[in-house]
Amino acid sequence: MKKIINNPEAFVDEIIESLLIAHPKWIKPATEDKRALVRADAPTQGRVGIVTGGGSGHMPGFLGYVGEGLCAGVAVGNVFSSPSSEQIFEATKAVNGDAGVLYVYGNYGGDVLNFDLAADLAEAEGIDIKTVVLTDDVASAPKDRAADRRGVAGMVFAFKCAGAAAERGDSLDDVARICAKANANCRTMGVGLSPTILPAAGKPTFTLPEGEMEIGIGIHGEPGTHRGKLESADAIAERITKQIVGDLAAPKGSRVALLVNGLGATPLEELYLLYRHSAKLIADEGLKIARSYVGEYVTSLEMAGASITIMLLDDELEALLEAPARSPFFRDGTES
Amino acid sequence: MKKIINNPEAFVDEIIESLLIAHPKWIKPATEDKRALVRADAPTQGRVGIVTGGGSGHMPGFLGYVGEGLCAGVAVGNVFSSPSSEQIFEATKAVNGDAGVLYVYGNYGGDVLNFDLAADLAEAEGIDIKTVVLTDDVASAPKDRAADRRGVAGMVFAFKCAGAAAERGDSLDDVARICAKANANCRTMGVGLSPTILPAAGKPTFTLPEGEMEIGIGIHGEPGTHRGKLESADAIAERITKQIVGDLAAPKGSRVALLVNGLGATPLEELYLLYRHSAKLIADEGLKIARSYVGEYVTSLEMAGASITIMLLDDELEALLEAPARSPFFRDGTES
Repeated sequence: MKKIINNPEAFVDEIIESLLIAHPKWIKPATEDKRALVRADAPTQGRVGIVTGGGSGHMPGFLGYVGEGLCAGVAVGNVFSSPSSEQIFEATKAVNGDAGVLYVYGNYGGDVLNFDLAADLAEAEGIDIKTVVLTDDVASAPKDRAADRRGVAGMVFAFKCAGAAAERGDSLDDVARICAKANANCRTMGVGLSPTILPAAGKPTFTLPEGEMEIGIGIHGEPGTHRGKLESADAIAERITKQIVGDLAAPKGSRVALLVNGLGATPLEELYLLYRHSAKLIADEGLKIARSYVGEYVTSLEMAGASITIMLLDDELEALLEAPARSPFFRDGTES
Repeated sequence: MKKIINNPEAFVDEIIESLLIAHPKWIKPATEDKRALVRADAPTQGRVGIVTGGGSGHMPGFLGYVGEGLCAGVAVGNVFSSPSSEQIFEATKAVNGDAGVLYVYGNYGGDVLNFDLAADLAEAEGIDIKTVVLTDDVASAPKDRAADRRGVAGMVFAFKCAGAAAERGDSLDDVARICAKANANCRTMGVGLSPTILPAAGKPTFTLPEGEMEIGIGIHGEPGTHRGKLESADAIAERITKQIVGDLAAPKGSRVALLVNGLGATPLEELYLLYRHSAKLIADEGLKIARSYVGEYVTSLEMAGASITIMLLDDELEALLEAPARSPFFRDGTES
């Protein structure tokens, strides 16, 4: 195990401590255990607060998207484990500006359970809650069961669009509608080349023989749809792009956003090789790439691999992507 | 070899092609072979143009720092190989706004040779050239031979400060003076946990037994100063921080910038663990951390490991760090 860590049991708490030392102008804890973090200026009166959360190990996933024009708060679970309902509830109270709170998170059993429990607690205190569960991973269930799909890197677009809507003062209904549309318009698929080792377990989440790849792998190492010999960047880009473009079935001439996301150990150079061929295939399909994102956005500790996400745009979503956003980990928008 | 690539011989050219597809608003080629890239708005009349360059494989190193408030151009070599003098010369002409051109690059033999040749070509055409060779890696030579040290992640601070000075219209002499001061005030040291495999060679740049680390390793796998059993994040942070703080010998009460840089395969979580303890030790030394940077800034393909850089600030350098900067890979400044 080649990890730069201290006590594995303290892994998450030490990271949070470090974030609070490094970025005090941006985030503050909402609980004594610091497992709920919120924007330093929370709550913002009259604005919808967006709360996300999930297991740790996906940085900048989840907690990296707390910031201006993004989420207002996050509940931080252990590695690959849901945060508790209490932590989510505390984040909710801390971002509540009397305009309602939107929950946005990936479709995983523990997260769904705990966010639903937190929603009950919050509503009992008179806080309006709406929920959008993210389901962009096409490899995780067929299209006729799209609601069963897991949420992966598409969360970046959901946070960005919903966050921009909340920032400009949209109502809870509108922020939820926009977030649901962003999710419905996103398709993602990944490829894994090597597994993640969980700090506490000290063992790989899955095994993959040298020289093999797994297409459709999840961000916790969930099994994919194809395992075989490692192929070229172009061949991998084609396998993924054809599948997500086919599933999205956007009309020719549509504008899309394209995100090539590294899962942890894959160099930026290789992500650009995937981008290159994916962008060509998307253009060949008659789609127009309006915005491009290449880098590590939602990871799986040191897993080698990547995912490709496309989001179908309309005028509303494109304007929201162009709005300013900033956190210590993510800056976007034509203005910023 | 677990790499997402196509033909290894085409690796660099395909990456450049991809960058030009993804970021046409930011960069444009200055040569037919596209190995010289410049800001999309180059040349800027009356402003100093900063040209950097070096081998590929360090993304976002070198070409990621072409942007507003940063470098104006870059010459792109093969993996871990210097660009040619002709490529540097072409970048020079393309950014020349009749206010002189500053060369800023790491202290490696091939780069020094080719930038010096390019300077001769440029001066023969009447372009004023000044050069700052970066030497922030304390592990690469003792303090009394500091000019022999290699340049590593401290390049980020050199680009940022010199770039901000050029952007506001400083003279070539001033931009060069500021860049030299930034370099003289920077100290970096790295740790490697696993090697890089060069795409064309298909072999590791060095070997390191499972469970071992190498302190002081260079960004091309150059040997470090200590090889031994992998230690905890805190112990690694202490080994490096004590050495760079000792070498810098800044007066107590000084303000510094702190950069924890991932070399490629090391997760952001682990970089924050290094940051946490390094920041504590720096505070214990009576230094004040004014700005923090944690992420992948100068990498070595998929090497696992990290480096820590501190830069001693004065009012001039701190103001330049705070100035806006943006490229597709790097955004900074209180304004942006």
